[in-house]
Amino acid sequence: MKSSEGRSRVIIEDVQPQVDCGVHAVKRIVGDTIKISSVIYGDGHDHVDARLCYRPAREREWRYAPFRERGNDVWEAEFSVDAIGAWVYTVQGWIDHFSTWVHDLHKRIDAQEQLVPGEPAGGPEQNEGVTAVDENTVAQEDFIASKKVGVGITTRPPNDIALAFRTGAILLDQASSRARGEDARALKTVAGSLRSLAEKKIDHYEFPLDEDAIQLALKYPDLGFASMFPKELPLWVDRERAQFSSWYEFFPRSSRTDEKHGTFADATALLPSIAAMGFDVVYFPPIHPIGTAFRKGKNNSVVAEAGDVGSPWAIGNADGGHKAILRELGTMQDFAALVERAEKLNIEIALDIAFQCSPDHPWVKEHPEWFKIRPDGTIQYAENPPKKYQDIYPINFETADWRLLWKELYSVFAFWIDKGVHIFRVDNPHTKAIPFWQWCIAEVRRSHPEVIFLAEAFTRPHVMYGLAKIGYTQSYTYFSWRLKKDELTQYLQEITSPPVSDFFRPNLWPNTPDILVEFLQTGGRAAFMQRVILAATLAASYGIYGPAYELCEHLPAKPGSEEYLYSEKYQLRTWNREDPNSLVPLITQLNRIRHEHPALQRNDGLRFHGVSNENLIAYSKRSGEDVLLMIVNLDPHNTQSGWTDLSLAELGLPLNDETYSVHDLLSGETYAWHGSYNYVELHPEKMPAHVLVLRAD
Amino acid sequence: MKSSEGRSRVIIEDVQPQVDCGVHAVKRIVGDTIKISSVIYGDGHDHVDARLCYRPAREREWRYAPFRERGNDVWEAEFSVDAIGAWVYTVQGWIDHFSTWVHDLHKRIDAQEQLVPGEPAGGPEQNEGVTAVDENTVAQEDFIASKKVGVGITTRPPNDIALAFRTGAILLDQASSRARGEDARALKTVAGSLRSLAEKKIDHYEFPLDEDAIQLALKYPDLGFASMFPKELPLWVDRERAQFSSWYEFFPRSSRTDEKHGTFADATALLPSIAAMGFDVVYFPPIHPIGTAFRKGKNNSVVAEAGDVGSPWAIGNADGGHKAILRELGTMQDFAALVERAEKLNIEIALDIAFQCSPDHPWVKEHPEWFKIRPDGTIQYAENPPKKYQDIYPINFETADWRLLWKELYSVFAFWIDKGVHIFRVDNPHTKAIPFWQWCIAEVRRSHPEVIFLAEAFTRPHVMYGLAKIGYTQSYTYFSWRLKKDELTQYLQEITSPPVSDFFRPNLWPNTPDILVEFLQTGGRAAFMQRVILAATLAASYGIYGPAYELCEHLPAKPGSEEYLYSEKYQLRTWNREDPNSLVPLITQLNRIRHEHPALQRNDGLRFHGVSNENLIAYSKRSGEDVLLMIVNLDPHNTQSGWTDLSLAELGLPLNDETYSVHDLLSGETYAWHGSYNYVELHPEKMPAHVLVLRAD
Repeated sequence: MKSSEGRSRVIIEDVQPQVDCGVHAVKRIVGDTIKISSVIYGDGHDHVDARLCYRPAREREWRYAPFRERGNDVWEAEFSVDAIGAWVYTVQGWIDHFSTWVHDLHKRIDAQEQLVPGEPAGGPEQNEGVTAVDENTVAQEDFIASKKVGVGITTRPPNDIALAFRTGAILLDQASSRARGEDARALKTVAGSLRSLAEKKIDHYEFPLDEDAIQLALKYPDLGFASMFPKELPLWVDRERAQFSSWYEFFPRSSRTDEKHGTFADATALLPSIAAMGFDVVYFPPIHPIGTAFRKGKNNSVVAEAGDVGSPWAIGNADGGHKAILRELGTMQDFAALVERAEKLNIEIALDIAFQCSPDHPWVKEHPEWFKIRPDGTIQYAENPPKKYQDIYPINFETADWRLLWKELYSVFAFWIDKGVHIFRVDNPHTKAIPFWQWCIAEVRRSHPEVIFLAEAFTRPHVMYGLAKIGYTQSYTYFSWRLKKDELTQYLQEITSPPVSDFFRPNLWPNTPDILVEFLQTGGRAAFMQRVILAATLAASYGIYGPAYELCEHLPAKPGSEEYLYSEKYQLRTWNREDPNSLVPLITQLNRIRHEHPALQRNDGLRFHGVSNENLIAYSKRSGEDVLLMIVNLDPHNTQSGWTDLSLAELGLPLNDETYSVHDLLSGETYAWHGSYNYVELHPEKMPAHVLVLRAD
Repeated sequence: MKSSEGRSRVIIEDVQPQVDCGVHAVKRIVGDTIKISSVIYGDGHDHVDARLCYRPAREREWRYAPFRERGNDVWEAEFSVDAIGAWVYTVQGWIDHFSTWVHDLHKRIDAQEQLVPGEPAGGPEQNEGVTAVDENTVAQEDFIASKKVGVGITTRPPNDIALAFRTGAILLDQASSRARGEDARALKTVAGSLRSLAEKKIDHYEFPLDEDAIQLALKYPDLGFASMFPKELPLWVDRERAQFSSWYEFFPRSSRTDEKHGTFADATALLPSIAAMGFDVVYFPPIHPIGTAFRKGKNNSVVAEAGDVGSPWAIGNADGGHKAILRELGTMQDFAALVERAEKLNIEIALDIAFQCSPDHPWVKEHPEWFKIRPDGTIQYAENPPKKYQDIYPINFETADWRLLWKELYSVFAFWIDKGVHIFRVDNPHTKAIPFWQWCIAEVRRSHPEVIFLAEAFTRPHVMYGLAKIGYTQSYTYFSWRLKKDELTQYLQEITSPPVSDFFRPNLWPNTPDILVEFLQTGGRAAFMQRVILAATLAASYGIYGPAYELCEHLPAKPGSEEYLYSEKYQLRTWNREDPNSLVPLITQLNRIRHEHPALQRNDGLRFHGVSNENLIAYSKRSGEDVLLMIVNLDPHNTQSGWTDLSLAELGLPLNDETYSVHDLLSGETYAWHGSYNYVELHPEKMPAHVLVLRAD
């Protein structure tokens, strides 16, 4: 124990937020204000004070923010983060003898009149220094503390108060010794005046210090015996796009209208129209050479025909692996040109990182020890017995050569970062060793804190959350399969509230090349409208796989399958992007609304409201003054109507029955509403949703 | 990173129970079975296994208990503690390649028939190795893992299975190398038979291993890459009395029926009657020399008259301090005789430790630096401005001499432990430095783990819980002021459920020498009956201050005060222990029931039930087969009746409307009840409660 430790009387508990006891970092974005709460108390009646200590992890010096007691020993502070990267925070608390002295002196002064020598003074103070606590208890505390050791007796106040002045003078001298320059001199002066006051014969005292003097002294607390919360809690601060992003996925090889294999040049030509739709992230499936061994044919058939292009996820051939580009797509220069064009359009290119190899991948020859070897000496292909996927070799993360393996996998990210890619969508991260991801993401961020990792982990909740905790910036979710009101409500509440929202950021996808849910197969165009509206307004990040989505592609590979018929994963497709039934206008409108309304750019302002119809869902999003109310018809086949039951407080509306106007950003119409109960009716094909701006009249 | 670390693929999270992230110990009593849960998972489809590691903190070797998965990656294990003192536990998890192999081999064998060459085999396994998880998701997981890399193609099974046999043989050899003697040989044999089976030409395979062989191999898992939960979590195991105790407090100086000052000899003579009442802890207010400076007189008057005995909490005079005995009570030999007699009656003597001094305490002369010195050079007496308590000097825990101070305070416990005292009731611990208590309690327990500390902290909730966390065995509670049904229900649920019940043990007192609640002042004898029944049946530990309690002493010092008139704190009292209205018979009955019924000896079996009257409260306690149902009339003035609404499941009763008999342990009556709804009527003076044993007929 160091010499002051035994004299540190302040206890600091339960600092929040905290992810897994501070093992993992809390996530926020730059510019955020972070509220910190903690339970802080000391022994006895002495006043406690505390401050939040926070800093970027690389800096030496703490920054400080004051804590305020909210009652019942719960304290709160807040601070803002002005840079991306790693931050830490902790709490420091101390006994404030000066503030205790001020408090007691007030009582001594106030008591001058009431005091009748020889009589007990005052009753037990009911709530001294405490609020929102059982009054009996606190009363009882003072009661026992006083009565057991005898009732308070009083002498004539003056000498008592004079002595208190001298005590105060000592405390002020000490504050002065901790201050500098003008402050130090000022405090000395106050101390001096207290002392001379103590010498005077006075019958009735006034409180001797003005508020400035008190505040000045409080500026220089005695931290000699201060307590520190034992942990520095980690916080990771991302750039804004980590939270607010609109993703558009497409296969560059299908960017032509003729039957030919699309190139980066063709894909580049599509970027302006995608930017016009309002997307800011364009994500490509793997762009690497595709294996030929056991290549799959159209519709995932076992045998490929001549000319079949194969699955981009069967990575690697003689041309190279994860750092090479499929010949038919073009050259590294073509890719550079695409990235450059995208930047001009304020679009970021996101690449797919799928750590698995086709049998033709260079790693297979160069590092066979990175794969499982079977007793017959052959390399173990992917299996889910009795199913076999001989076109794929999974990596063996238990290899004795794991250090070199990790370095090589890391270098794949480093390579593409060097090519201007700062967003990666990671394929099935839950089938690779999680400690590898923890190390790899940290390693990338040491030099590139701006990099965003999206986890494509459709697996069990704890595993999905675990990947977010160890560093993934965003995660795919179960949204694709959450269709009913109660499912959507329960799930979105879970992933947008603490503790989950402190480390997990949802990215909602109504479809992907792997996921054509039955609802979209059977719901018609209205289903596609409904689901993209939900995705774009429920969470700050969402994405679609296009043009399949905006063109309402809905045929499954076979009944009961969620695979697309003629899936682009196995063949080229040509898309009629001029189709008059395309959802491009709706999607463009949604993305514009998202960009104009801060409420849709965060996840923490989501609240659900009542509406008297199971097929209608109502929810609002709020950020400061910006409030939007969404009402969506979940039934793609029938018009649904009902009465809202709005929480007016959540909407920032007057709690009386006054009228207010609601303006629908989708239809352009404006209605006069009042109170909580308002009639809504939504036609699934015409427009299955209201996106309402509220204005109190 | 050590060479295996990168290859450890199992993640271990959220081990429960845990108090403040393992900073403080979970509390249990010897013989308890402790349930541990944890979230445990790995990447991909490989099977995970885990074991609980636990041991007494002093031992080197871990003991192990198996974990079982309860679904959704939540695992559970349990272990029993067979010794008091400090224990630790943690979790170890690993990938079980053998169990994965067994699982896959079953699927390979089962698939032999179904397989049609060239056709995909099976669908996505909906719930492989998972329960209670979103099915879409898990299906989707396999779906993507499979389909994106191509559908499974199948060759003829035999050679595939033969290869699997060879893989299994390798795993069995490895298990054999980790085993010894007979097990090692047996595993080698199984491996050999698998190998020879792999050589044979077989058209149809049966599963080759029997359950014994499988279990034998599972006994020797490969822990080479096992993961350890990073923390060893602390557990403190107390003796049973830490949880189950019945306390009786009295002033030994008032143990005579004449006007004379009672002695230890007089107190000893009372012990048999207290033992007959069924109490097992007798607690004395401070027995030390009492100061004369500013001594308080009768009824806490400011001026003491000649012969006034003073407050036992004004500790210390020329005869000594905390290690001395008040002359009038007798000698150390008399005290030893009392302790010895108590032991024979299976009663433990608990002493009051109040770390504060009268101005006459030897410490004041020997160690003035342990107190606050005022600017005029005098020692600071206790104050709650403007109230002064000049008969008491508080200790200054910020003294530069804190190390010596701590040692001396600790030595007070050591002194009385040496005299045979193993239970201490600590006076106002929340007005002394909490880090001191943490150190002192740990120091005492290093050599005396059997010692019990009861915290008399009537203060704010977080402070009371904080003292329990840093080591106090038991705590006074707000029970004295919890009178209404909803107050009792909410509060008892809070303190008997996790997380609070993992570190906080309530000791319920309907009265103390400081607390005569208004309800007892005005409620008459019925109020005293009701409150002691509640205290004795709601919690495993309770106590009364007698004979004031059993004699229904109810006059307050003044209106609105919770102080007793003629309080024993300031004067001698003589009590008529033969009073026919005494509650001794009821209390004797309650303590006998407590000793006969394990359900009343723990706090974790408490459940509240419905009853259709706000003045009636119904609750049950259960431990294994032992179930008691209490129904109490909270109105001391009127008969109250109503209908119960019992949770039959909680009571272990058939969920149908069958009749069962309830036997009232207080009245001796038996009733035939059926189902949840039964009529009850309770007369406050006759007997305000049912204590029912339930027997299904």
